[in-house]
Amino acid sequence: MRGISTENNANMRNLTMMTDLYQLTMMHGYYRTGKHKEPAVYDMFFRKQGDETNYAVCAGLEQVIELVEHLRFEEDDIQYLRSLNLFSEDFLHMLRDFSFTGDIYAVPEGTVVFPMEPLIRVKAPLCEAQLIETALLNIVNHQTLIATKASRVVYAAAGDSVLEFGLRRAQGPDAGIYGARAAIIGGAASTSNVMTAQMFGAIAAGTQAHSWVMSFPDELSSFRAYAEIYPDKCMLLVDTYDTLQSGVPNAITVFQELRAAGHEPVGIRLDSGDLAYLSKQARRMLDDAGFTKARIFASGDLDEYTIADLKQQGAKIDVWGVGTKLITGYDRPAMGGVYKLAASCVDGEWKPKLKISENVWKITNPGIKKIARLYSNTDDKAIADLIMLDDEEIDEGSPLTIFDPIETWKKMKVSNFHVRYLLQPVFVNGELVYDPPALHDIREYATGEKSTFWDEQLRIKRPHKYKVDLSDKLYNLKKRLLDKNV
Amino acid sequence: MRGISTENNANMRNLTMMTDLYQLTMMHGYYRTGKHKEPAVYDMFFRKQGDETNYAVCAGLEQVIELVEHLRFEEDDIQYLRSLNLFSEDFLHMLRDFSFTGDIYAVPEGTVVFPMEPLIRVKAPLCEAQLIETALLNIVNHQTLIATKASRVVYAAAGDSVLEFGLRRAQGPDAGIYGARAAIIGGAASTSNVMTAQMFGAIAAGTQAHSWVMSFPDELSSFRAYAEIYPDKCMLLVDTYDTLQSGVPNAITVFQELRAAGHEPVGIRLDSGDLAYLSKQARRMLDDAGFTKARIFASGDLDEYTIADLKQQGAKIDVWGVGTKLITGYDRPAMGGVYKLAASCVDGEWKPKLKISENVWKITNPGIKKIARLYSNTDDKAIADLIMLDDEEIDEGSPLTIFDPIETWKKMKVSNFHVRYLLQPVFVNGELVYDPPALHDIREYATGEKSTFWDEQLRIKRPHKYKVDLSDKLYNLKKRLLDKNV
Repeated sequence: MRGISTENNANMRNLTMMTDLYQLTMMHGYYRTGKHKEPAVYDMFFRKQGDETNYAVCAGLEQVIELVEHLRFEEDDIQYLRSLNLFSEDFLHMLRDFSFTGDIYAVPEGTVVFPMEPLIRVKAPLCEAQLIETALLNIVNHQTLIATKASRVVYAAAGDSVLEFGLRRAQGPDAGIYGARAAIIGGAASTSNVMTAQMFGAIAAGTQAHSWVMSFPDELSSFRAYAEIYPDKCMLLVDTYDTLQSGVPNAITVFQELRAAGHEPVGIRLDSGDLAYLSKQARRMLDDAGFTKARIFASGDLDEYTIADLKQQGAKIDVWGVGTKLITGYDRPAMGGVYKLAASCVDGEWKPKLKISENVWKITNPGIKKIARLYSNTDDKAIADLIMLDDEEIDEGSPLTIFDPIETWKKMKVSNFHVRYLLQPVFVNGELVYDPPALHDIREYATGEKSTFWDEQLRIKRPHKYKVDLSDKLYNLKKRLLDKNV
Repeated sequence: MRGISTENNANMRNLTMMTDLYQLTMMHGYYRTGKHKEPAVYDMFFRKQGDETNYAVCAGLEQVIELVEHLRFEEDDIQYLRSLNLFSEDFLHMLRDFSFTGDIYAVPEGTVVFPMEPLIRVKAPLCEAQLIETALLNIVNHQTLIATKASRVVYAAAGDSVLEFGLRRAQGPDAGIYGARAAIIGGAASTSNVMTAQMFGAIAAGTQAHSWVMSFPDELSSFRAYAEIYPDKCMLLVDTYDTLQSGVPNAITVFQELRAAGHEPVGIRLDSGDLAYLSKQARRMLDDAGFTKARIFASGDLDEYTIADLKQQGAKIDVWGVGTKLITGYDRPAMGGVYKLAASCVDGEWKPKLKISENVWKITNPGIKKIARLYSNTDDKAIADLIMLDDEEIDEGSPLTIFDPIETWKKMKVSNFHVRYLLQPVFVNGELVYDPPALHDIREYATGEKSTFWDEQLRIKRPHKYKVDLSDKLYNLKKRLLDKNV
């Protein structure tokens, strides 16, 4: 692992100062009004993201843990903050000893989650809970965005392998490094990003570019040179000059030479033109030449929609390379995750808090909450989620009636079910109590998670809505606070 | 500066391994075929980006310099690469002593550039030129994307201040940190991102969030508490409960108290609702109460299009806070910059190279090139750019006829002009010969750059096309190579 022995590892970065200035001015304000040690609970959750995405695949917790563990104001940070003439000396002095002392509960990475569910619950003195907001949102919004996008791409690929290779178009180094990590969580089989592969034990993949082919006098000699160096890993890029007239025939020539020397080729790569037409033609040519096991790798401006269309048109593609549109989220390049005050403790008494809005979807859920997922005992599929107060329990032995928190007349009676609570303790009293799993284990877990949902709920266009309801107790608390506030 | 004294600075990161695996397999291939030391020239440029964006504001060169200066394979990198079973021991041994020995020419950050122009020109042994491709593209694509988006937002704001505050929605830490840097280059006045402000000497800005207001028993007491701590920097968030019924009246109450105590308020912030209506009402209320100089800060899902619309509707907004849609590029979240072989040197002889394509826009320009910008001697406005071979010179004393390289019948005669060559030496024989300017100087330079173009060329919708032509010599070379190749 890169992290252990070199000083340049992104894992070791101190991101304390990567925050919005208003977090620091508010912290100073809380300090000056004597409120900075008052405990508060904040929820990180996302709201409905348009019509087409229902679920999200949670990612980024490991980097949130690193953020929290490395929270520390260095002496030059203090000096910089002093230079802004915004903060009192006693406050700056307090920052010198700043560390996180609270509790964090979170859903494990790879978990399938839905709008309004608290993915991370932070209970900490106001000052601490406030400071980490921006970086926590930055990390979780980004990785969840890309893991979710990858999950959609992998769904469209319907069992074919997906290679993430968007590093050159990612929004900066971290977007490439952690975006590739998130893509693996979402189900990508491999990444072109060597650093991500090295840091997280992912599979690195890639062969050659057009510039390789162009650096030789002709295509055939570039293919021969590659085959000689990688006789058992020979994947050839066939579209530099003319795919069907030159690229595929030259590849077949080299494949025949390889086979004569006792090696089997891996396949060919198409990177331009109409991938449905070219892949079908290339497949036929490869098959006719006896290379029925040679794989066809395709790339070029792909996303889940184009992959689904190409598959519907009978494209003969075995591996999908997805770049720009996966690593940036493209048609939805930001996850709108927010971090909202859910409860505050004044003079030792906890008070649930909500933020009202004219938009019913924007009203937050008050109190210290957890998420229960109800599973059918007959097929182990998820039936519905219930957001509930932390001190509530569900009796698995009794039938349960749940109802939509907005369209309250929509009710459902659930019986013969078991319950799983999604939030896990990560930090307790500032101590890390959670052991982040390895990337390949998270990927496997995420695949398992998706298998507990119906295809109807996962499909990329107009998915069937999965029920996320509120417990009676939470619903009544919210209603009471709304009636009181407005 | 953060970088000097702490080990956690992103500036000190070694990004050598942040590359696509195929760069390493190709490097190995070049090594094994004895070509790795052959000099080659690569151009980084972007192609036409849809219809609406014509120009781009270059950014990211400083981080490219850091990338190149820190190129080094650590011992654990070598070990990792060995574990992939792709590379020979002699190649891995060579990597131990790897460093960049070539030349890099680049247009300075903040320069206004156009499609097909070589923004960065790398001349180096094949192996070295290949290795840096991915990280170079990652950095320049990202920062140029955001600097350009910021420039469009600033253009729409027509002289009002723009605050970048998208960190929580940025695609990971670097996207927030360097995205904010790029936004400043594009013309943003300030950023909420404390780390960017600290690292690059930018102005950090921000006040309070809804959670501040909610943490007090009522809005008025939250405003009073803030005003007490920041009497001379009092900007109040007025939309937590009801903007016009509660927020603005409470702000005015506190502003009156402030003024009675000898302080002038800064203003109010609107973060929801219809910003045109609310800002006009709030302006009237503030003016009626005698606070004609109190500024109105607005935020909420803004981009260049919404800002232009709001201004057209007479919104009374002085400062625009732009988050998600600036820091992610949003409607165009990736810059399609590419890095293409332009020339290679075999047995001491330079040969121009081009990549053909069925799409005329995708055909690259061959040879070692530079960019000349022609300025009118009468108004100092830019007339046209000419991409030309490096050994060509333009005679400023003679009239020059230029023509569109695709629609060749479109000709223009230019006279009474002077020429500026945009590419500057950055590395020569591996030595850094360039002193990157400070961020505020880059911002100022970029503003000056834009003033040499006409509004028609900079407008956010359907801009007038700026001419980027090829010199006769380059055009003829390209034509000759195309005729020979196809």
